[in-house]
Amino acid sequence: MLVGKILRSPHGHARIVKIDTSKAEALPGVKAVLTGAEAAKYAKPFGPHFKMDYALKHDKARYWGDEVAAVAAIDEDTAEEALRLIEVEYEVLPVVLDPEEAIKPGAPLVHDDVENNIGFESHLRVGDIEKGFQEADLILKDKFYTSTQQHVPLETWGCVVNWDQITDKLTMWKSTQSVFYDRIGMAAALGLPETKVRVIMTATGGGFGNKTDGVNATDLVAAILSKKTGRPVSLITERWEHVAASRVRHAMVREIEMGFKKDGTITAHRERDYINTGAYPGMGPMVNILTPIFARGPYKTENEWIDCSMVYTNRSNAGAFRGFGGPQSAFAREQMLDMAAEKLGIDPYDIRMRNLVHPEDCPYVNAQGMKINSCGVEQCLEEAAKELGYHEKRENKRKNRGVGLALMFQWTSVRDRPETDADFSSVYLKMNEDGTATVYSQSCDMGNGVYTAIAQVVAEELGIEYEDVSIVTADTETTPACLGNWGSRGALTAGNSAWRAAQEIKERLFGVAAAMLEVDKDNLEAKERRIYVKGSPLKGVAISEVATAAHFLSSMGEAGPIFATGWWASEADLPDENCCGNPCATYAYAANVVEVEVDPETGKVQVVEHVAAHDVGMAINPAIVDSQILGGMSQSIGYALMEDMQYEPGTGRLLNPTYLDYKILTALDMPDVNPILVEEPDPSPNNDLGVRGIGEGPMNCGAAAIANAIYDAVGVRMHSLPMTSEKILEAITQKQAQERS
Amino acid sequence: MLVGKILRSPHGHARIVKIDTSKAEALPGVKAVLTGAEAAKYAKPFGPHFKMDYALKHDKARYWGDEVAAVAAIDEDTAEEALRLIEVEYEVLPVVLDPEEAIKPGAPLVHDDVENNIGFESHLRVGDIEKGFQEADLILKDKFYTSTQQHVPLETWGCVVNWDQITDKLTMWKSTQSVFYDRIGMAAALGLPETKVRVIMTATGGGFGNKTDGVNATDLVAAILSKKTGRPVSLITERWEHVAASRVRHAMVREIEMGFKKDGTITAHRERDYINTGAYPGMGPMVNILTPIFARGPYKTENEWIDCSMVYTNRSNAGAFRGFGGPQSAFAREQMLDMAAEKLGIDPYDIRMRNLVHPEDCPYVNAQGMKINSCGVEQCLEEAAKELGYHEKRENKRKNRGVGLALMFQWTSVRDRPETDADFSSVYLKMNEDGTATVYSQSCDMGNGVYTAIAQVVAEELGIEYEDVSIVTADTETTPACLGNWGSRGALTAGNSAWRAAQEIKERLFGVAAAMLEVDKDNLEAKERRIYVKGSPLKGVAISEVATAAHFLSSMGEAGPIFATGWWASEADLPDENCCGNPCATYAYAANVVEVEVDPETGKVQVVEHVAAHDVGMAINPAIVDSQILGGMSQSIGYALMEDMQYEPGTGRLLNPTYLDYKILTALDMPDVNPILVEEPDPSPNNDLGVRGIGEGPMNCGAAAIANAIYDAVGVRMHSLPMTSEKILEAITQKQAQERS
Repeated sequence: MLVGKILRSPHGHARIVKIDTSKAEALPGVKAVLTGAEAAKYAKPFGPHFKMDYALKHDKARYWGDEVAAVAAIDEDTAEEALRLIEVEYEVLPVVLDPEEAIKPGAPLVHDDVENNIGFESHLRVGDIEKGFQEADLILKDKFYTSTQQHVPLETWGCVVNWDQITDKLTMWKSTQSVFYDRIGMAAALGLPETKVRVIMTATGGGFGNKTDGVNATDLVAAILSKKTGRPVSLITERWEHVAASRVRHAMVREIEMGFKKDGTITAHRERDYINTGAYPGMGPMVNILTPIFARGPYKTENEWIDCSMVYTNRSNAGAFRGFGGPQSAFAREQMLDMAAEKLGIDPYDIRMRNLVHPEDCPYVNAQGMKINSCGVEQCLEEAAKELGYHEKRENKRKNRGVGLALMFQWTSVRDRPETDADFSSVYLKMNEDGTATVYSQSCDMGNGVYTAIAQVVAEELGIEYEDVSIVTADTETTPACLGNWGSRGALTAGNSAWRAAQEIKERLFGVAAAMLEVDKDNLEAKERRIYVKGSPLKGVAISEVATAAHFLSSMGEAGPIFATGWWASEADLPDENCCGNPCATYAYAANVVEVEVDPETGKVQVVEHVAAHDVGMAINPAIVDSQILGGMSQSIGYALMEDMQYEPGTGRLLNPTYLDYKILTALDMPDVNPILVEEPDPSPNNDLGVRGIGEGPMNCGAAAIANAIYDAVGVRMHSLPMTSEKILEAITQKQAQERS
Repeated sequence: MLVGKILRSPHGHARIVKIDTSKAEALPGVKAVLTGAEAAKYAKPFGPHFKMDYALKHDKARYWGDEVAAVAAIDEDTAEEALRLIEVEYEVLPVVLDPEEAIKPGAPLVHDDVENNIGFESHLRVGDIEKGFQEADLILKDKFYTSTQQHVPLETWGCVVNWDQITDKLTMWKSTQSVFYDRIGMAAALGLPETKVRVIMTATGGGFGNKTDGVNATDLVAAILSKKTGRPVSLITERWEHVAASRVRHAMVREIEMGFKKDGTITAHRERDYINTGAYPGMGPMVNILTPIFARGPYKTENEWIDCSMVYTNRSNAGAFRGFGGPQSAFAREQMLDMAAEKLGIDPYDIRMRNLVHPEDCPYVNAQGMKINSCGVEQCLEEAAKELGYHEKRENKRKNRGVGLALMFQWTSVRDRPETDADFSSVYLKMNEDGTATVYSQSCDMGNGVYTAIAQVVAEELGIEYEDVSIVTADTETTPACLGNWGSRGALTAGNSAWRAAQEIKERLFGVAAAMLEVDKDNLEAKERRIYVKGSPLKGVAISEVATAAHFLSSMGEAGPIFATGWWASEADLPDENCCGNPCATYAYAANVVEVEVDPETGKVQVVEHVAAHDVGMAINPAIVDSQILGGMSQSIGYALMEDMQYEPGTGRLLNPTYLDYKILTALDMPDVNPILVEEPDPSPNNDLGVRGIGEGPMNCGAAAIANAIYDAVGVRMHSLPMTSEKILEAITQKQAQERS
């Protein structure tokens, strides 16, 4: 196996004039040196939506860290030495880093043929926006900026690829959220039939959206190096490369305008948003559609008009990230709700209660067409506020302390494969001869516990124990089609697939058990590894015996393998041209209630307590759901207070590509946190388990709640993330200056 | 990963008095040293039938090469050094190498509690043997000895084992003929549930029976070392270890007595056989049952009585080997037929024609109860004799040249799992979205091409191309139960499983295609990746489109994965106490006709031409079937003329544990060979493909035909294998002395 390494652009924007690889090629131990010109012969441009990214860039580098050349060598030291020997002549170009700058006439163009750097637009049109504003007693308008956050998964991007020279079959081992998309992406870029690409998920300790793109430059470079050398290639990026050149959360500019009646009812909601997609589109188009669709939050807004543009800049490519636009929209909307409440003399709690979808509204189809079959957001708000003592703390305000709240509305799974008309998942379920079960699942467990949940569902339905269930993990060759783990879809899609397969297996086992016990099949139940007559637990037989008989004894019906496929497909619609419709399998809700203390001398924010109540429908494994919530809280507090990728103005150099400089919360930074599970089952007919999905929601409204708490504490309204001590101190100073003047 | 190594006995028979491992343990880099006493705490005694073998021996070593101790170290050099540092004190015991010596009173006992060293007996009782001999006009009696042959697979025994410390799950990668038996064997010996053992087949370049035992000492030692060290362990035996201590063909002593009428009709067939199983039973009991069952050959013998005993000696453990007793029985029976023909003045060709099962006899149930639904052995004999010019050469005899022939009757698959009442195979078949197919098969392709055959069957049935079918290879976790590849069963069992699965998939695809084309399903056919209306090939649709629609378009019927399980189970009986019944799925037949030239000055035999005509039922892939026949011919010529494991009398030391001393045929040694395929389909209802199995038959009667040809050339009757120049020269010399006297 060879080691691959990528040479990256040291410039934020530069034309590649000439590359001399001769010295690198001459180095003993170097087996291949690859440039963009040569790579283009092997791989077409790629991308999950628009095919505009290249394995290696042949015309110009568009951000600091962009892929320019690569080597494969016998070991890591040799590969690194070879990179140093590649001589690249660059013509440095001016950079543009900010979407509002980028859309101005005369701004540097990231892609020469994309005018104004606007790569994609979407327009939500719901109700009558002018009428909404006419009906308003109060109209507020403001602008909010969100920052660029890193996913920080345990494993960096990287893979091992073996492109077999005889069979022309490519096998890739990769830490990933979707082997399904990886296979499609690799096959399309390399011009291979899909069945000539096999993707095997390796241990994945966190993804958060970072590993959903389907294919990336690292994968393609490894594949081409394997093809060129005829050997397997391991290409694992270093941490700084991962930070600089994988994916990040879209920084956004959100100009928001909302209208309210005196009682707080929202009459209109309008936004003009720009999302900073960085140098390439990546998942930007999808985020650019979902941002308007989910800007409304869990409210019954009737008139809504949102324009959103995806803008190219000389920053690294933004992509999918836990929430897919949710935290950005909450940061704007939830602050504006608080601003309105203050103007109208209403408590922030009450303005939300006024507008949210109540249980008695359900089943409810909102103005966009989304089917809200049940909704526990009211209970979330009540319980979270109670847990924190929100009302008491509002009434008995302590100096420099404040409480804030925010609600969220999260989609679960989404229709996004128009070419196959489907959003789906499937499992195979095999009952072994000894009464244990094996699940084949392509749902990529990335530490979110979806395999645990699947095993629990199967064990409970079949009446066996959790430890009797083993999982054949994601591998495009051995496991059945599933879009992977993203969009909070794991438990919902793979869980329901497993549930369905288990019903079929149970039917067969009960049939054999009925023949063995000479009783009616409908009188049986299964528990603790036995099938027995209801009410007569002694009249039963071990499931291991039933399984053996079903396999091998033709006297017990047709002998043979016990096997079922469990298929789940969304019944949702694709969004229409107005971004309307019901695009999701189901929806999830939460309320965050936070107490902070702000030091007015330094601007430092201390989160004193953070309560998050989530309506999860049904918690298959409450410990896993708690962990998801805790993880999301940690990530959202980091987003609120410290995380931001900083680019040097003028050069586009990334200033904090390591975790020495890019800070996330450590265990010691975590405040007192309380996850609360609200279980309002989703009654949708296509959701036997009633689960809603918990992957993303916990990220969505933490920063907004903290912003509101900061305002409650020290009276400054924060318009940009992260809300660092410096910014808060500056805001306090300005406020004091205004008050003095 | 650590490297494991085994310390082997330097004595043919010795009590282990003391083992001092302290020096080995002190060597830096050594992670574990294991003795028999400690190994017994981890692993129970094992064996496919009788559990009498141990991972490491704690009481005594029973043959030269027996496993005594083991180490795991950081590399191979350290492991070898550690073996040298283990001090073993032995008490050397007398050896017994020959079954006729071993059963004598007072002979050394290989197992202290097994009297006369007889470990197992079987007794075939068919018809009235005394009446048969009374009806005979000629009775002949003689004794034949066969030799100990090595399988010579490309990979030696060995494996990589990772016994995970957290999950207690053991994963083993191994070159093997049956991951199914490996899993059962490992689980039983280590006291694990079967689902805690995963066995994955690695590339297997030949097995020939050497890799069917299910578990062996090498596997268990690797497992225990992995458990002890908490690390994966690679334990690959060296070639000399493999020759000395894996498995070999049972050497046999066959005392045969047959009665004939004047016209050559067989009236009685009696044998007293001893099979040399070596130090442990291994697969000996099965060979000891099958030897009597198949001693009859393809003849209509009515009265048959065979006693067979399995005898322990201080040689390495004999086991399964291509033919499972077939070559040994042919060597005795086919020579006796020639001897009788000579006495009765009949041509060897005619005495066989007199006795064999003719097509017009079928369906025929022989005296043992075997169901011969069709039989092409007559055609095999005719065609092979014609191809070689047998009759012309008999009539125009050239000096020192001779022709010889022999017939065989080979079982295909056999009922041998009484505990589950089944002999079975299954595949999963997945139709991919793009119209390609994936087969999950636990049939272990060991170079015999069973995966190729499966892919051909699936491609032809589905109307796609061979290269559209990929195989998920044998792995107990991902592929469905199949007993593996042995007993000539690959194409029959896995092939029919695949055929059945393909029918189900085809049904589904035709249903969707019928909806797309708006025609009746029964009017469709599939070919060249299209489904179209019979007779109107233009009215059709690509299978890739049908597959995509079936997966994703709910308008085309129920959407979802296209998946089927194909199950095949034998309808044969278990043999009864008289070794009677119909134990096999089907039977195969062949005729070998050989011309040799013998140098009377040196005794050297030159095979001039070797013709083998095989009734294969149906050849899925004629090139593969040809290759199987050629390989079997090579192995049977080696068996006839040169192959034999030689043990030093008195010590039991193996004298030829390397291929410098143990000779097999090289390409240059191969004579002119002609395989002929006779395709008389097996009409059994349980055999949709009509195949018979070709794995073993080609081995069975080469040595017998050569022995008969030697007699025809120089008039000496050879009673023992291999028929070396020395033995032939001695026989010629004796004959000349007798003629002179």
